[in-house]
Amino acid sequence: MQPLDRLYKPKSIAVIGASNNKAKAGYEIMYGLRTFPGKVYPLNPQADIIFGQQAFPNLKAVGQPVDLAILTIPAKSCVKALQEAGEAGVGAALVVSGGFAETGEDEGIKLQNKITSICRKYKIQLLGPNTVGFTNPIAKVTANFVPWLGEINPGKVGIVSQSGAMSYCLATLVQTLGLGASLITGIGNGPVTKLADVVAYLADDENTKVIVLYFEGLGKGEGRHLYNVIREVTKKKPVIFLTIGRSNIAKFAASHTGTLLGSYKLKTTALTQAGAVKADSGDDAIDAAGLLAQVRLQPKENPGVGVLTGQAGPALVIADYLRSKNVLIPELQPSTVEKISKELLPISFMKNPVDTTRPGKRSAFANVLQTMAEDEALDLLAVFALYKTTAMDPVDIFEQCKDIKQPLIFGTGGFPEHINPTLKKLAGRKIPAFTSPDRTAKAIRALVDDSKAAYRKQQAKEGQRTFKFNIEPLEKTPDEAAALAILERLGIPSPRHAACSTHGEALQAFAKLKKPCVVKVLHPSITHKTESGGVILGVETKAQLIEALQRVDRIETETPKRYLLAETAAAGLELIVGAVNDISFGPAVLLGLGGTTAEAWGDVSMRLAPLTEGDAHEMIDELRGKKLLSGWRGAPAVDKKQLIVTLIKIGQLVVEHPEIKEMDINPLRIYEKGLLALDALIVLQE
Amino acid sequence: MQPLDRLYKPKSIAVIGASNNKAKAGYEIMYGLRTFPGKVYPLNPQADIIFGQQAFPNLKAVGQPVDLAILTIPAKSCVKALQEAGEAGVGAALVVSGGFAETGEDEGIKLQNKITSICRKYKIQLLGPNTVGFTNPIAKVTANFVPWLGEINPGKVGIVSQSGAMSYCLATLVQTLGLGASLITGIGNGPVTKLADVVAYLADDENTKVIVLYFEGLGKGEGRHLYNVIREVTKKKPVIFLTIGRSNIAKFAASHTGTLLGSYKLKTTALTQAGAVKADSGDDAIDAAGLLAQVRLQPKENPGVGVLTGQAGPALVIADYLRSKNVLIPELQPSTVEKISKELLPISFMKNPVDTTRPGKRSAFANVLQTMAEDEALDLLAVFALYKTTAMDPVDIFEQCKDIKQPLIFGTGGFPEHINPTLKKLAGRKIPAFTSPDRTAKAIRALVDDSKAAYRKQQAKEGQRTFKFNIEPLEKTPDEAAALAILERLGIPSPRHAACSTHGEALQAFAKLKKPCVVKVLHPSITHKTESGGVILGVETKAQLIEALQRVDRIETETPKRYLLAETAAAGLELIVGAVNDISFGPAVLLGLGGTTAEAWGDVSMRLAPLTEGDAHEMIDELRGKKLLSGWRGAPAVDKKQLIVTLIKIGQLVVEHPEIKEMDINPLRIYEKGLLALDALIVLQE
Repeated sequence: MQPLDRLYKPKSIAVIGASNNKAKAGYEIMYGLRTFPGKVYPLNPQADIIFGQQAFPNLKAVGQPVDLAILTIPAKSCVKALQEAGEAGVGAALVVSGGFAETGEDEGIKLQNKITSICRKYKIQLLGPNTVGFTNPIAKVTANFVPWLGEINPGKVGIVSQSGAMSYCLATLVQTLGLGASLITGIGNGPVTKLADVVAYLADDENTKVIVLYFEGLGKGEGRHLYNVIREVTKKKPVIFLTIGRSNIAKFAASHTGTLLGSYKLKTTALTQAGAVKADSGDDAIDAAGLLAQVRLQPKENPGVGVLTGQAGPALVIADYLRSKNVLIPELQPSTVEKISKELLPISFMKNPVDTTRPGKRSAFANVLQTMAEDEALDLLAVFALYKTTAMDPVDIFEQCKDIKQPLIFGTGGFPEHINPTLKKLAGRKIPAFTSPDRTAKAIRALVDDSKAAYRKQQAKEGQRTFKFNIEPLEKTPDEAAALAILERLGIPSPRHAACSTHGEALQAFAKLKKPCVVKVLHPSITHKTESGGVILGVETKAQLIEALQRVDRIETETPKRYLLAETAAAGLELIVGAVNDISFGPAVLLGLGGTTAEAWGDVSMRLAPLTEGDAHEMIDELRGKKLLSGWRGAPAVDKKQLIVTLIKIGQLVVEHPEIKEMDINPLRIYEKGLLALDALIVLQE
Repeated sequence: MQPLDRLYKPKSIAVIGASNNKAKAGYEIMYGLRTFPGKVYPLNPQADIIFGQQAFPNLKAVGQPVDLAILTIPAKSCVKALQEAGEAGVGAALVVSGGFAETGEDEGIKLQNKITSICRKYKIQLLGPNTVGFTNPIAKVTANFVPWLGEINPGKVGIVSQSGAMSYCLATLVQTLGLGASLITGIGNGPVTKLADVVAYLADDENTKVIVLYFEGLGKGEGRHLYNVIREVTKKKPVIFLTIGRSNIAKFAASHTGTLLGSYKLKTTALTQAGAVKADSGDDAIDAAGLLAQVRLQPKENPGVGVLTGQAGPALVIADYLRSKNVLIPELQPSTVEKISKELLPISFMKNPVDTTRPGKRSAFANVLQTMAEDEALDLLAVFALYKTTAMDPVDIFEQCKDIKQPLIFGTGGFPEHINPTLKKLAGRKIPAFTSPDRTAKAIRALVDDSKAAYRKQQAKEGQRTFKFNIEPLEKTPDEAAALAILERLGIPSPRHAACSTHGEALQAFAKLKKPCVVKVLHPSITHKTESGGVILGVETKAQLIEALQRVDRIETETPKRYLLAETAAAGLELIVGAVNDISFGPAVLLGLGGTTAEAWGDVSMRLAPLTEGDAHEMIDELRGKKLLSGWRGAPAVDKKQLIVTLIKIGQLVVEHPEIKEMDINPLRIYEKGLLALDALIVLQE
């Protein structure tokens, strides 16, 4: 038995604060539990009978083992109640009240810390505080204060949501689509039972075939934990997620569950990297869940989708959407096209999508589908046809094409009263169906994204490269020379250079370097060297060198400055390679195009570290200006191989050195062969 | 009476090719017309009785006036039938058959040209060929071969679709949402009755409150026609459009309706500029249509949306979406917040969104809504609350807040069986309602986009500037010097320069110019001067000049070359300003960031010409790298005023000179004060 079973599949429940007053949460909870097959103990020191049952003054008085205690009492009363619950051996607790850390006030934070430590001490699986609770339609537990949720069909979709209300919204969509749920749970502030814990729990729950996740922000270390959990869980079942933060709504969000929103880009990148499928809306998420609960494609780099339609317009809409989202609709093999052409009029488009608009024979549709299924380029077959066109009846067609190896998806248009019987029949045959071209296309995309993510992770196992750096933990913030020395240890070269403490040393070094040189101020506190006048380019002569050194001398700093003399690197494309140690997601590597112009675009890609070769490849591929790396306007294609190695190494460095808070190589100049770090900045944790 | 009334509101219909054979379109059409209140004449030389009615051998035999002839006969037979229809005084014709221009073959194109000229000659309003037809639920005409469409509710949404099948898909969504339609029509190849004609027709149709448009590509001049029509129509009613072409599906599309897809960016920009609202999917389009059929906001630059919610999660989802789409959710005035704070717990977020999560009193929700309505920053109030939360019942609330001046939108989540009665009541009170946070947010966005577009057009009237250029029509492609001279006439300056035919002339000119100079080859056929070695920078001395001239001499061309000597412009930000005369949409102006790096991003904005100041402003604002123009990294903000004037002038030039096929100023160097055209290229129509 999993520890979370006592929370989500309890045999006995005590409701602390149970009430006969309809306006109270203690009533709603009791009402929701009226169909619970196990034992319910209403607790209330003031009442005899609640909801027709004998009330108890406290847990001790119950005298029976209790799996789950539901607390519908004010925040302040929860400490004592949980202490008693712990002493009574209660396995799990649900605290619905707000007034804890989400208030942002000391009192609430302290209160949350107190109940957290009690629950930790007694190994109580605490759900909440500040959550609506959960519903397990399979175990028939409706432990939340919106009891209509208990009427949801049992099914395959598991919903885990930081926000209780969003869990209802998603559950609503599940029910509206005629799907069913295995669990719907809020998380609330979640100091004990976190999103990731429930995701991991659902991975082992046999009823759950797909997990839908809604979250806002993730606490310290929680992002990385969730990332790790999803990496494992998606091997067993698909995870779809939905999050917010594309725009500036941080203040409001903080007041909701007390977590910081974090970077939208980092969150979505990390979860996608872990193998989850990103949904653009709740509606899309549940459409995708309905499909992924039934079908999952084999992991593949770029699965091919065959689109067969009865009408060209919807086929175009579907194909346009899919191609714009990098879903492959491969051209069919010539032999396939030739076979298909026997069934259709010559004007039909037959290369994929195959549009049968005016088939010659009634059997054409099924024959074409069968022929497409034999094309090895296709991993999935999507069929779209309007209701009751002369060309086809999907139920008939799919009946005729029973031994097709690829998964089938059907899309249609028609009034509900007309198509519902067909949809029902298709559901009976386990063929997923969607009722508009766009929804069909979006669901296909989710299916393909899931397969691609699984493939990437498979490759990751083989694609993981590790290096031996043997760099001691960094104790103080390195200046540029020290930072470049670290990069050198990593095998990331920089132009020949020398760090000098005096003019004399500088003159000596200058004699040995190729001219012109760059002279820079060397001081760990000066991070914006150019802005403070501490970078002098094109130093050719001794006289120029002395002038440059004097300019550096004039920059005010507290401790003594040094000078960095470096050879001038050949012209080339400039990139920025950076890394951060995010408070929630941990180490991540960033890649961007360099130069002030490029920086204005904010064209940056990122991945959590450690990176596989595939991750590094994708980072390059995700840059909007990636053309610049592949030989743009007569420039040579740059050394992507070295760039990939560099990204992986920087990733490994920040993983092995958690004392690094952030770092960047700006610019990293890259050539047809090789690359050079022209500047490096490493900032340590405070 | 409008000419298209005889097509869309006929009193009498002849079905040419009517049939008793269920497999034929001639049967489906007759079946669809069974509820038509006017006269139906089945035509078929081989049959006596069709569908229980006396059949006629031809139109002459009918001997009665016929408004609409529906041809369900093969393409080849249509010529003769339309000739007879013309002679019989038929007002409109619907040709459902394919086999015309969409085949891309000579025979089909000729056939289409023939029927087009017959229809033009006899003033027959031809719908099609290659279309499924139309349904007018108000006039009870089901003139298409998918007769179930005739069962759609009559209502306010007019659907005009190049693709017949997409018209069904959209109609399906209308019916599913419980909305109704005023007209659903395919257009097909549309050589006579075009999309724009039907849009214009629906503008005057009193039943239609909103127009939804689906199109793929638009023919020669058709884009501009549609643009002009939409500019006018949107003054009366909103237009929502949906198109394809984000990805490479051109080949398939061409096989569908025989039109080229054109640039997705140009199409969507042009229609948005005209005042239409772009939908990202058919589902979004119909959600928006349902809302816009009921409510339209006053034109405003940036309408403010007030969001009031019963639960924080959905509020965050809605606010995040809206803000990411530039919809304003303004902070409420302090006095509003103060009043609201009396109703809610202090931890509630009250600045907008206002989240009532745990209101103190039952009356709180209505009081807060009333208070928000008094805030002048709000032009629209959106309320989201889950079904049957203790906090509120929307019907009650809205009943209590009857005299709110802003339009109200309600969003909810709840199982259909629970919320349908509420939705019905709200529909009765004409309060639009949506069943998920995302759909609520997307519909709000459409409403706001419509208001913003109307405001832009209002401003346009005042913002239209015209200049007097008095430039003669261009007869031959100008070389760079001639192109710069044209720009000079426009008041767009370039660095001081001289065009020289001989080395002697060049030496004389050089003496008068500020050094260093740029020497360029001058020849109308050499459009890539840099690549052909025809641009020499930094020419300081006579010797360097002669070397430069000799380099130019070595470039091979047929006719004699000349030399362009120009002063070197000061460093500055580089832009590209261009223009094209698109075959479908006519003249359009383009703005992009210059330099090879920027070009790799493809960061370009465009507007159809002529441009208003507002258009030019928006073009700058739409650039992803717009930061670069506003003082990025210590650089000064550039002279946007001059840039706006330049964009407007280039627009006027290409409008007044249709002989210009395309042109660009690349780069246009722009400074804190003023700008300089460093190069200009003008290409004339062939």
